[in-house]
Amino acid sequence: MYTREALLEMVREAKLTRNLTWGEIAQHVGVPEIHCTSALLGQGTLQLHQAERALELLGLPAEAAHTLTVPPYRGGVSMPPTDPVLYRLYEIILVYGPAFKEILHEKFGDGIMSAIDFEMHVDREPDPRGDRVRVTMSGKYLPYRTF
Amino acid sequence: MYTREALLEMVREAKLTRNLTWGEIAQHVGVPEIHCTSALLGQGTLQLHQAERALELLGLPAEAAHTLTVPPYRGGVSMPPTDPVLYRLYEIILVYGPAFKEILHEKFGDGIMSAIDFEMHVDREPDPRGDRVRVTMSGKYLPYRTF
Amino acid sequence: MYTREALLEMVREAKLTRNLTWGEIAQHVGVPEIHCTSALLGQGTLQLHQAERALELLGLPAEAAHTLTVPPYRGGVSMPPTDPVLYRLYEIILVYGPAFKEILHEKFGDGIMSAIDFEMHVDREPDPRGDRVRVTMSGKYLPYRTF
Amino acid sequence: MYTREALLEMVREAKLTRNLTWGEIAQHVGVPEIHCTSALLGQGTLQLHQAERALELLGLPAEAAHTLTVPPYRGGVSMPPTDPVLYRLYEIILVYGPAFKEILHEKFGDGIMSAIDFEMHVDREPDPRGDRVRVTMSGKYLPYRTF
Amino acid sequence: MYTREALLEMVREAKLTRNLTWGEIAQHVGVPEIHCTSALLGQGTLQLHQAERALELLGLPAEAAHTLTVPPYRGGVSMPPTDPVLYRLYEIILVYGPAFKEILHEKFGDGIMSAIDFEMHVDREPDPRGDRVRVTMSGKYLPYRTF
Amino acid sequence: MYTREALLEMVREAKLTRNLTWGEIAQHVGVPEIHCTSALLGQGTLQLHQAERALELLGLPAEAAHTLTVPPYRGGVSMPPTDPVLYRLYEIILVYGPAFKEILHEKFGDGIMSAIDFEMHVDREPDPRGDRVRVTMSGKYLPYRTF
Amino acid sequence: MYTREALLEMVREAKLTRNLTWGEIAQHVGVPEIHCTSALLGQGTLQLHQAERALELLGLPAEAAHTLTVPPYRGGVSMPPTDPVLYRLYEIILVYGPAFKEILHEKFGDGIMSAIDFEMHVDREPDPRGDRVRVTMSGKYLPYRTF
Amino acid sequence: MYTREALLEMVREAKLTRNLTWGEIAQHVGVPEIHCTSALLGQGTLQLHQAERALELLGLPAEAAHTLTVPPYRGGVSMPPTDPVLYRLYEIILVYGPAFKEILHEKFGDGIMSAIDFEMHVDREPDPRGDRVRVTMSGKYLPYRTF
Amino acid sequence: MYTREALLEMVREAKLTRNLTWGEIAQHVGVPEIHCTSALLGQGTLQLHQAERALELLGLPAEAAHTLTVPPYRGGVSMPPTDPVLYRLYEIILVYGPAFKEILHEKFGDGIMSAIDFEMHVDREPDPRGDRVRVTMSGKYLPYRTF
Amino acid sequence: MYTREALLEMVREAKLTRNLTWGEIAQHVGVPEIHCTSALLGQGTLQLHQAERALELLGLPAEAAHTLTVPPYRGGVSMPPTDPVLYRLYEIILVYGPAFKEILHEKFGDGIMSAIDFEMHVDREPDPRGDRVRVTMSGKYLPYRTF
Repeated sequence: MYTREALLEMVREAKLTRNLTWGEIAQHVGVPEIHCTSALLGQGTLQLHQAERALELLGLPAEAAHTLTVPPYRGGVSMPPTDPVLYRLYEIILVYGPAFKEILHEKFGDGIMSAIDFEMHVDREPDPRGDRVRVTMSGKYLPYRTF
Repeated sequence: MYTREALLEMVREAKLTRNLTWGEIAQHVGVPEIHCTSALLGQGTLQLHQAERALELLGLPAEAAHTLTVPPYRGGVSMPPTDPVLYRLYEIILVYGPAFKEILHEKFGDGIMSAIDFEMHVDREPDPRGDRVRVTMSGKYLPYRTF
Repeated sequence: MYTREALLEMVREAKLTRNLTWGEIAQHVGVPEIHCTSALLGQGTLQLHQAERALELLGLPAEAAHTLTVPPYRGGVSMPPTDPVLYRLYEIILVYGPAFKEILHEKFGDGIMSAIDFEMHVDREPDPRGDRVRVTMSGKYLPYRTF
Repeated sequence: MYTREALLEMVREAKLTRNLTWGEIAQHVGVPEIHCTSALLGQGTLQLHQAERALELLGLPAEAAHTLTVPPYRGGVSMPPTDPVLYRLYEIILVYGPAFKEILHEKFGDGIMSAIDFEMHVDREPDPRGDRVRVTMSGKYLPYRTF
Repeated sequence: MYTREALLEMVREAKLTRNLTWGEIAQHVGVPEIHCTSALLGQGTLQLHQAERALELLGLPAEAAHTLTVPPYRGGVSMPPTDPVLYRLYEIILVYGPAFKEILHEKFGDGIMSAIDFEMHVDREPDPRGDRVRVTMSGKYLPYRTF
Repeated sequence: MYTREALLEMVREAKLTRNLTWGEIAQHVGVPEIHCTSALLGQGTLQLHQAERALELLGLPAEAAHTLTVPPYRGGVSMPPTDPVLYRLYEIILVYGPAFKEILHEKFGDGIMSAIDFEMHVDREPDPRGDRVRVTMSGKYLPYRTF
Repeated sequence: MYTREALLEMVREAKLTRNLTWGEIAQHVGVPEIHCTSALLGQGTLQLHQAERALELLGLPAEAAHTLTVPPYRGGVSMPPTDPVLYRLYEIILVYGPAFKEILHEKFGDGIMSAIDFEMHVDREPDPRGDRVRVTMSGKYLPYRTF
Repeated sequence: MYTREALLEMVREAKLTRNLTWGEIAQHVGVPEIHCTSALLGQGTLQLHQAERALELLGLPAEAAHTLTVPPYRGGVSMPPTDPVLYRLYEIILVYGPAFKEILHEKFGDGIMSAIDFEMHVDREPDPRGDRVRVTMSGKYLPYRTF
Repeated sequence: MYTREALLEMVREAKLTRNLTWGEIAQHVGVPEIHCTSALLGQGTLQLHQAERALELLGLPAEAAHTLTVPPYRGGVSMPPTDPVLYRLYEIILVYGPAFKEILHEKFGDGIMSAIDFEMHVDREPDPRGDRVRVTMSGKYLPYRTF
Repeated sequence: MYTREALLEMVREAKLTRNLTWGEIAQHVGVPEIHCTSALLGQGTLQLHQAERALELLGLPAEAAHTLTVPPYRGGVSMPPTDPVLYRLYEIILVYGPAFKEILHEKFGDGIMSAIDFEMHVDREPDPRGDRVRVTMSGKYLPYRTF
């Protein structure tokens, strides 16, 4: 039986020893990078066959796969984030949040963008003045119930 | 002389009276929706000619345009956000933040995505199982200084 | 043009003057009690014809109805709640939250109960040892996206 | 002598090894699912014979049963919850709390719903548009003392 | 129509002008001192005839009595209290709370002392070495539900 | 030499093994229940002969008695308390604190009830409608210095 | 009738108009500087004849004196203090607090220095290397109750 | 090589074993009580020869002296303090802080009392009505820079 | 008599009407930019003749000058700062603070950089790859007292 | 494989054993003092050849160098800082932050000073009245995006 903490530590070490990137693991597993990485950092789940493929690539025992299919207690960042990479996302809410809410309601009505039925990608966007980070999010629109 | 608070209140009222959307105002001004709306909510600045076009459409006095060009004290959301629309963005940091950091460093090195040299769009993505909210962010990659 | 704050104040006063209960207003409007009351407390929206019926019963001007259809900034309780009625709900999360999470995952898998596609009722349950408050919640199950 | 922490860890492991669900354990013990699970997560107590039945099913030593009858220091969620399953309950207080308070007072008077003389159930409600989570709570109404 | 805030302000002024003590008001109303005072500070309710007696003594309009029968949003102290009188009560929880919990469970079992079905008195206890404050609380014992 | 933490752990274990109640220990030591228990939970001190009697009853080494006479760093509850037993005391401050302050000043003048020269008792009060918890506190009145 | 807030505002204005120092007022009233000033800042009380002398010097109506004898809700600094003068006192607790506690117990036993039966003075101490601020505090030693 | 934590633990144990008071150690070292104690609690530094004298008295290895000369990360109290001894100092800031600031500025101008070039003493002041704790602080006055 | 708040508002308006920069005002007054601006934002003091020069340039009444010489309650930023300009300074403490402390002690010993006897400048540093902000701080080194 | 925590501990010990200063290490590595120290405290990265040079000087294994090139989770100070050295930097934001923002916008426009493309130096500035700490920061100016 493997606890999640022990398993995630083994994943991290195997990744370094085998010199694998999160991107390579994700491609092998067949799940988008952010989502596969998130699961292997303890913030999500993989399906059983996906977990087995990840462990196989990392040279870890197949019987540990079940642990990666169990829903974790999510929330891997203490707020406000002190790390600048994460803080900039937080700052985007502070600065663009009110406008985001207005535009979302204008285009959709009274509802939200789901963070559950949700997909996210991070890409490198070449730019002569300095490359850019492109983040794409797609979440299902969920309207508030009407009666 | 108009204080920003007074002016923003006038903008909000004029928008309702003239039955304008933030999208229409942004198109008239020639600035992306989120950015134009953000400025008119007190979280950013417009250039003088842009501010004048916005006020013209809203039927507000041109001499107020200067106020919209002055950098505000940013930060329009109290954290954690209680509104579900904004909270879902916050939750995305909690759940996908650690993976985002790993992938960003893997693709770019030791640095961040700028929230200053930054652009953001919100679009409606049709989907037969229910339309989706698509958020696109593009921020300049800023490497930590090396010596 | 009515601001939401002004309108909600007018609703509260009219309700007292006309000696109406939230339950009577909700029945007249045709929306479940908690949801109708929530909207009239500034935590939700009504559809236009519902808002008009509410205002008619309260003897308030029909042109104010539009204001009640605009999505508000939600979050009407400062946390932790100091009022005992609300604190008991908070305590239920503290005490039964971990078991709720386990059972929900056991019955549904890796996902959540929606608080958006959501309905809630409060009823009086007669009991010889002292009547009971019965709270019924029904939220759509939303599975985390799989790939 | 077993400390509660050690015992709960043993319960969790035995449950996995024997491939039992919380629901099966609860049924064997004869206590509602949420309440039995809550006790086995350290947030409540079982009566001695109930604790013995739970330990028997899990293959754990009977003399540990006493530990499960001792009132714990309750409060198993750090607030605000970062996990989306628990956060949605928290959001329900934020959004529907004020209306809940109004309706409760309207139907009962000046008092509260007890979180001590309290029962809670979670069920799967089939729905062609997607199954729903049904939560039912029943707490004794406690009036404030009058003189 | 009187808002609670306005009415409580009027009570406070009338009490000073007429040179009444909280104790005299409570005696006239026939409700224990702490409870009557608490209601007149906006932290509780009086029954209609009690409210009318209080207002009569204070020379305030009888039609305001209804306002004092409506359950308020309770919680009149920001925590931790900065005032030394209130802080000492808070310190008593810090220092004697753990022992209180142990003793209560030893004498009663798994349950709590109600703060709703609750009564409290403050008296002067003469003592040659310096008079003492005697606080007496009496709350109904509420056992956790068993199954 | 025994650290307080180690000693308190030994006390807790010996109490369970010898099947003693806090009440029995307190009676043997000759100190009120809450105060004796508080000291043995690390929130107070005993006099040397009292500590020796407590250790004797618990079958623990007499040379550890000195440790129980050293003033501890007090404060054994993290605030706000999540445990319902302790939270109800906290709620009593929230709801009855303002009235307590008014009545105390009315009966005593500008000063406080000491939490140092202080005594507290918890008793079971039989009541046909359900037994009650009776808490009695007695603290010396300390007037603010006058000049 | 004067509210405390209104009266304190009048005191502050009169002090400026009449060009008085807190020291001069305190001397006229016959109460140590810090204590007299504290009362006139709303953090303490004066005796009636002292309040009358203070108001007389400030040219304010004598009937306002009663207000200054009523115990206020104390606590005039939001913590941690942002002002450097007050922060340095806070820092002294952070740095010297643990040693203060050890020495106090070594010299007195298990008890505290009262902040109620307490006196404080601030003086200028000439020093060739730069004058010094001398703060003297004297608080009654209060031993914890023994049994 | 000794880490500070390990060394401070050794100091504490040796002090108990050798039955020394902080006052005796300070006198042997030749540094005021509070300052010597503070350094030996990890909140300050000693000069090398002072550290050697302290270790010699405590029977600890001389080569550990260097560790006590290294500036620590100061701040040994979590705020607000829960221990009553320390809380009373905190309360003094809450209640007398505003007056302290006024008097300091009146006597010195725009500046502060240094907490760095600072000395503090705690003494027992005999008093027939009960001995008193006398705290004397002396900090250099630092004026804000003028231009 | 001018309150500081009223005066600072008048300063801000006059600055806009007369189209002055903080830099021009500082130069006229003869005080470094940051320090003069800070005083006119209510975070510091000017000497009387400096205050008079500032008011003269702004066309404000000379008798208001006294108000600008009174030490304010400092602390004009709520922490953590939400505005990106100020947050970056905060982030510099988070990231470079520990190294700053090590280097400062290495170069100076056990002491601090004063924030009172302190000067600060902000300049534009031309750079072909994009101009830079140069911040220069100079604070007196204050050693901890030795004995 | 070395975890960062283990490696940083080894660095700290080796630095003491070999009697090296952070300044000497930085000079050997060829990176500014604050930046080299920051990386060796776990708040930044070195390039591979720089890490190797640092480890060589410290007598640590070269294969650990890779660990120092991996971006860490930054944020090494808990806020507000309790250590006086770090608190003074925090106080500088509280007091001079608002003026800094005004001057920066006046000299540059709507943008920020980067904390990423950033350099910082700490020097000893001799002064007959007492040496001073000189801190120099240089961060790239980043304008908000315009459209």
